[in-house]
Amino acid sequence: MPAQTMEELVSLCKRRGFIFPGSDIYGGLQGTYDFGPLGVELKNNLKAAWWRSMIYERDDVEGLDSSILTHKLVLRHSGHEATFSDPLVDNRESKKRYRLDHLLKEQKPETLEAIANALNLENNISALVAGLLAHAEAGAVLTAAKVIEPGESKPSSWTQPRLFNMMFKTTVGPVVDEDSYAYLRPETAQGIFVNFKNVVDSTSRKLPFGIAQIGKSFRNEITPRNFIFRVREFEQMELEFFCVPGTDEAWHDQWLEARIEWWLSVGLSRDRIQVFDVPKEDLSHYSKRTYDLMYQYPSIGFEEIEGIANRTDFDLGSHTKNQESYGLQAKVEPNTDSTEKLSINHPETQKPIIPFVIEPSAGVDRGVLAVLTEAYTKELLENGEERIVLKLRPHLAPIKVAVIPLAKNREEITSVAKGLKDKLQKLGLGRVLYEDTGNIGKAYRRHDEVGTPYCITVDFDTIGQGKDGDSSLIDTVTIRDRDTMAQQRLKMTDLEQFLREKLR
Amino acid sequence: MPAQTMEELVSLCKRRGFIFPGSDIYGGLQGTYDFGPLGVELKNNLKAAWWRSMIYERDDVEGLDSSILTHKLVLRHSGHEATFSDPLVDNRESKKRYRLDHLLKEQKPETLEAIANALNLENNISALVAGLLAHAEAGAVLTAAKVIEPGESKPSSWTQPRLFNMMFKTTVGPVVDEDSYAYLRPETAQGIFVNFKNVVDSTSRKLPFGIAQIGKSFRNEITPRNFIFRVREFEQMELEFFCVPGTDEAWHDQWLEARIEWWLSVGLSRDRIQVFDVPKEDLSHYSKRTYDLMYQYPSIGFEEIEGIANRTDFDLGSHTKNQESYGLQAKVEPNTDSTEKLSINHPETQKPIIPFVIEPSAGVDRGVLAVLTEAYTKELLENGEERIVLKLRPHLAPIKVAVIPLAKNREEITSVAKGLKDKLQKLGLGRVLYEDTGNIGKAYRRHDEVGTPYCITVDFDTIGQGKDGDSSLIDTVTIRDRDTMAQQRLKMTDLEQFLREKLR
Repeated sequence: MPAQTMEELVSLCKRRGFIFPGSDIYGGLQGTYDFGPLGVELKNNLKAAWWRSMIYERDDVEGLDSSILTHKLVLRHSGHEATFSDPLVDNRESKKRYRLDHLLKEQKPETLEAIANALNLENNISALVAGLLAHAEAGAVLTAAKVIEPGESKPSSWTQPRLFNMMFKTTVGPVVDEDSYAYLRPETAQGIFVNFKNVVDSTSRKLPFGIAQIGKSFRNEITPRNFIFRVREFEQMELEFFCVPGTDEAWHDQWLEARIEWWLSVGLSRDRIQVFDVPKEDLSHYSKRTYDLMYQYPSIGFEEIEGIANRTDFDLGSHTKNQESYGLQAKVEPNTDSTEKLSINHPETQKPIIPFVIEPSAGVDRGVLAVLTEAYTKELLENGEERIVLKLRPHLAPIKVAVIPLAKNREEITSVAKGLKDKLQKLGLGRVLYEDTGNIGKAYRRHDEVGTPYCITVDFDTIGQGKDGDSSLIDTVTIRDRDTMAQQRLKMTDLEQFLREKLR
Repeated sequence: MPAQTMEELVSLCKRRGFIFPGSDIYGGLQGTYDFGPLGVELKNNLKAAWWRSMIYERDDVEGLDSSILTHKLVLRHSGHEATFSDPLVDNRESKKRYRLDHLLKEQKPETLEAIANALNLENNISALVAGLLAHAEAGAVLTAAKVIEPGESKPSSWTQPRLFNMMFKTTVGPVVDEDSYAYLRPETAQGIFVNFKNVVDSTSRKLPFGIAQIGKSFRNEITPRNFIFRVREFEQMELEFFCVPGTDEAWHDQWLEARIEWWLSVGLSRDRIQVFDVPKEDLSHYSKRTYDLMYQYPSIGFEEIEGIANRTDFDLGSHTKNQESYGLQAKVEPNTDSTEKLSINHPETQKPIIPFVIEPSAGVDRGVLAVLTEAYTKELLENGEERIVLKLRPHLAPIKVAVIPLAKNREEITSVAKGLKDKLQKLGLGRVLYEDTGNIGKAYRRHDEVGTPYCITVDFDTIGQGKDGDSSLIDTVTIRDRDTMAQQRLKMTDLEQFLREKLR
């Protein structure tokens, strides 16, 4: 049974060194988190699994790593300056600020009904938000409808809602003036679009093909919350897959299936994933159709872990020079800034076209949270004790093997254990830990909690000094399985094959 | 012979998809670069090699990945708000802005002599900069000494030099006021220091031990230049190694040796590395002693690739609560903001102490540039043609193996080649490419230029349709060595062992 509450995950993550709040000793910087010794390994393993599946195991995807600081023209022509906003509203009394849609979701049905009636709107959150933003007296409408602050019972007085751009800005260069700013990218995708020609020219790719990127993105969320689910600094794994217009819908469906398969391969269970076909009125400005993969997180329920969007020819069309020559299907703003044509030859007609784009865009942090959720297991042991075990897939486990000397003050044993650690480390299977803290029982429990698939113990029998003097045990060790807790005795020389097979 | 000029590297990097200027299609964002399909693999391989050597192959280092957005109090108490500045000066005529030390380095000896005499200073760059910053009439002194703008011959008129803080700021949260800013970290190190207690508590580490981190840092350089050498967004590989005070100097020397060894292991030659023992007057505010590893880059000569600093107890001492109780050796500013004691027990006395820190801090981008420099080779072939080959160490090569079908329209051949690609990919040795663009000669040249150690060709003999009908060649392929260009015929079943051995 997976984790039942966010609290138990937060607690494990802090206690065992997976995830800490950012700038912790100064009271924290809201919406930022630091990955500790085990968290960084888990996150790196998840990213490596994605990279492998996207680039190495296919023959039609190239990788990229573009910069975070982004020219303002990139995010002007992408549409982010104009539309990448959240609706904000202030409580006049408490001075607290809310995202309007989040605030509405926490109101009673009769309150929403009253707003819908007052403005003659359909009673659903997106219609209400759009209607309120368009209405000059929306603050008064919210107040009259008795909108309350979450957690309070008395209605409050509300300001006029307004749009708030979520991009972080910073001044670049030594001159501080109105024009010398750049953005921290709000998505890695734009770095891919503006490098389209660079990648095509340097790799000779033909349609269809993709460009994949993993990296940090930044969004000035009004109310970061739910641990690492909604944060201001996060990591994305994004693929932009370029295809001939007309083949886009088939590719869209194919990528939906491929992405679900991948999430299953990192340990998520199918019954905790839902596919949400985003209604037309809720689509982003660039999207023709979007499937959201929703994962059932503890405490917060089904929330988006990945969006798979059909971005049409919107992005390349928006960023290209000579837009008018391509008969674009998307509606784009004029662009007289771009210096390059972002076209590619149609594979049959050989005429330059702007391809369509299918974008599977996954959250790394949300992926880590889902993987932890699914792996977290509480078991009642036969002796009545409770055991917490992280049943991570071996390729994601932060530590693959712990090598434990049974007596940490006996040089005959520790030297064998250290030698074994070095030998196993060289197999390139991931982190192998020499573990000499605490007694053997505690070491097992600790490695259960952090998801180490195997503990190997070097004991007196290994060095021929066992109680019964059984010489057949010389050069053998005990290997313990995390999930079954079963132990078996193996020759040290057989460990390589055993581990290669099990940890593959 | 390594690369002779920066230009030939820049050209190769753009042509073959290693590195492109950031926000390229909008005229570029100065000081930012994007890593293309091959650059991202090379960079990831270099980072993985560092991580492996720092964490996996040792038993005394933990990893970390802290956030880029950093609380202002972290960078106030680290000393960065007060001292992380460059001296700036403006040319009144051209309106161009310069870093004072860079400007002085480009002047004639008699100009520097004139400044030194006018202010009664020692004639070296750091003394001149310090003296000018302290002098109220320094602008007039520069003008009178006939300081010229680089590239010009006539003296210019100069403004008073002043200090310019190099940290990028951004507003966090929906409220824009004087207090709601945070910084983009200027180094990954501070994320390690503020997590010291989190790591110690979750791993039970004892002294000596280290915490290592790889990640992006940001510095608002006045004049970014020299390709990816001096940029505004860059990546660091930093280790903070905590040790008992008194053992710090021995550890410092040990880390110097270890780091030189590591750079040799990624292909740098010893005679292009110099150790610079930074003079006392040039040390950073936190440093007791620093060794700079200087690498001989093309066009720009010996420049810093890594700094190995003895940071004493300055950082943990600056960030800890109850500073006065630890008898700190460093001079620190008072701290009433920190909520945690950043001490650890002395391994012998068991009394809480603030450890000393040795910091090997390497630049990822500078490392990539050095590795490319060293690998870049121009050879004259017997037929008089020139060959460019990147002699990268196999573990760094972006593509490990290219599998080439000799005829790309013959399904009997392409299906064998694709099957072989998939099989070799599964060995987990890195990226294996199915290569069917252009003819075989061009494919070889291309893979020479990007450093692919082996090209494997599937031909008619492989499928038993060779000209002489030699059936002993069935299921064999040609494997070509990048460096020697020698080709040999191997059974496909022998490839795994061959490649495991060669690519290790």
